[in-house]
Amino acid sequence: MTAAVRIGGATRLYAIIGDPIAQVKSPGVYTMLFAERGIDAVMLPAHVLPGRFDESVRGLMALGNLDGLVVTVPYKARMVPFATRLGPTAARIAALNALRREPDGTWSGDMFDGAGFVQAALRKGAVLAGRRVALFGAGGAGSAIACELVAVGVASLALIDPAPQRADTLARLLAAAFPACDIHVAAGVAGDRDMIVNASTVGMHAGDGLPGDIGPLDARTLVGDVVVTGTGPSALIRTASERGCLTVDGHDMFAGQMDALMGFFHPEAASLAQAANAAD
Amino acid sequence: MTAAVRIGGATRLYAIIGDPIAQVKSPGVYTMLFAERGIDAVMLPAHVLPGRFDESVRGLMALGNLDGLVVTVPYKARMVPFATRLGPTAARIAALNALRREPDGTWSGDMFDGAGFVQAALRKGAVLAGRRVALFGAGGAGSAIACELVAVGVASLALIDPAPQRADTLARLLAAAFPACDIHVAAGVAGDRDMIVNASTVGMHAGDGLPGDIGPLDARTLVGDVVVTGTGPSALIRTASERGCLTVDGHDMFAGQMDALMGFFHPEAASLAQAANAAD
Repeated sequence: MTAAVRIGGATRLYAIIGDPIAQVKSPGVYTMLFAERGIDAVMLPAHVLPGRFDESVRGLMALGNLDGLVVTVPYKARMVPFATRLGPTAARIAALNALRREPDGTWSGDMFDGAGFVQAALRKGAVLAGRRVALFGAGGAGSAIACELVAVGVASLALIDPAPQRADTLARLLAAAFPACDIHVAAGVAGDRDMIVNASTVGMHAGDGLPGDIGPLDARTLVGDVVVTGTGPSALIRTASERGCLTVDGHDMFAGQMDALMGFFHPEAASLAQAANAAD
Repeated sequence: MTAAVRIGGATRLYAIIGDPIAQVKSPGVYTMLFAERGIDAVMLPAHVLPGRFDESVRGLMALGNLDGLVVTVPYKARMVPFATRLGPTAARIAALNALRREPDGTWSGDMFDGAGFVQAALRKGAVLAGRRVALFGAGGAGSAIACELVAVGVASLALIDPAPQRADTLARLLAAAFPACDIHVAAGVAGDRDMIVNASTVGMHAGDGLPGDIGPLDARTLVGDVVVTGTGPSALIRTASERGCLTVDGHDMFAGQMDALMGFFHPEAASLAQAANAAD
């Protein structure tokens, strides 16, 4: 999407960095949000080439009128050393997707991929505390979502990944920080789970099925999927909807992340955002 | 001014670099011109701090989707080493105000401050060839204008500057390149001149008078002034208008430079620009 915006000499800059960049939606979305909230700022697409990563990022961060960065594939881990300090999720998983310049010129970084999921679920009226979760995918998105789910008090978290090593690493990391939660690696979905989240890439391609055997679903199961397709719901979301489950899809997550990121960049505008959401 | 524009992931970037930056008009003006010509691009204000000049410029030029830079005070000379090649005016005066990325990734730089003046004068129907010119100011703007005036064939050029050394340096430089033109340093305006241009800063401040003794003016004298004020015409332009002279002011120059720069960045759109000007 693109947004109608105004730009002048005093306009403040934000940039989303990634490779490739032409497909990103953030420039249009955040630029429009800034405009709606009366903030004279734009979100630029910045195509950072892998071989020129350091000089591109240093150059952007050196600009006197650049106030923040959003970070997308493949740079979420590579940006970590550029933050002066990290929020709890970014520190835990050693990846970030947003950097904000503080008034003293230092940079705070944090990871909002998981916060977007949690915020979207809460906005739909879901209760997350006490849930028994099966999570497919322990990569970047899965790690971020896992962090946020244990932080909001799910009772158990089963990590399912074709690469058991990375699921195990994530499980150990989270178990150390959240001893009250039952965090473990699993080969499949156990019968007692009441929440299923797909954070794997299964579903991104036409003809993809479910991320794995999800067993029988009943209407009390909360089902989430990070996948965004251009062709309607993923197989997982479609199946869940048919069974009457509450669902959180990739579009919901993106909207949830918008709120979280706007709150990070412009805390004073966050209450306005919440008011606008309440009116949706 | 600000312009209503659309911005998305595929939008191409141009930036104007300077310090300070909040006062520049180029972001609004060029972003609007891009939009009018169906070019998906924006012109950003980039606040480049003097102590972080090299890293800022290198970072911007490293971005895969940045196609050009406009350069303003105080960086027109400092940017020269970043160009792979220079146009004739930029090479002569060792200053540039625009850089364009070529398809092979190299950078071409040139200086359009003088071209803007010449283009504005021609658009008003002025004949420049054969003129006997008195030019106040041999700094950046004066040097650029002097270059373009001798290139379009003025008969003589008297350079008047409180610092005779820099007027002398410019005169020698131009005389070597354009032996047919009578180029010399002068202390004041001689009686035979039929064109007066102010490229000094006199006129920028409220209460400023003329840049020097301009002698009697008649209606055949072409009078130009680089000064842009927020409070109406400069004393020089006001005086010239009262005498019935054809005038070229700072706003005319900025408009002329817009055309020259758009032609530099997007040669294929230049003919459209000329068509639009013809319709003004």
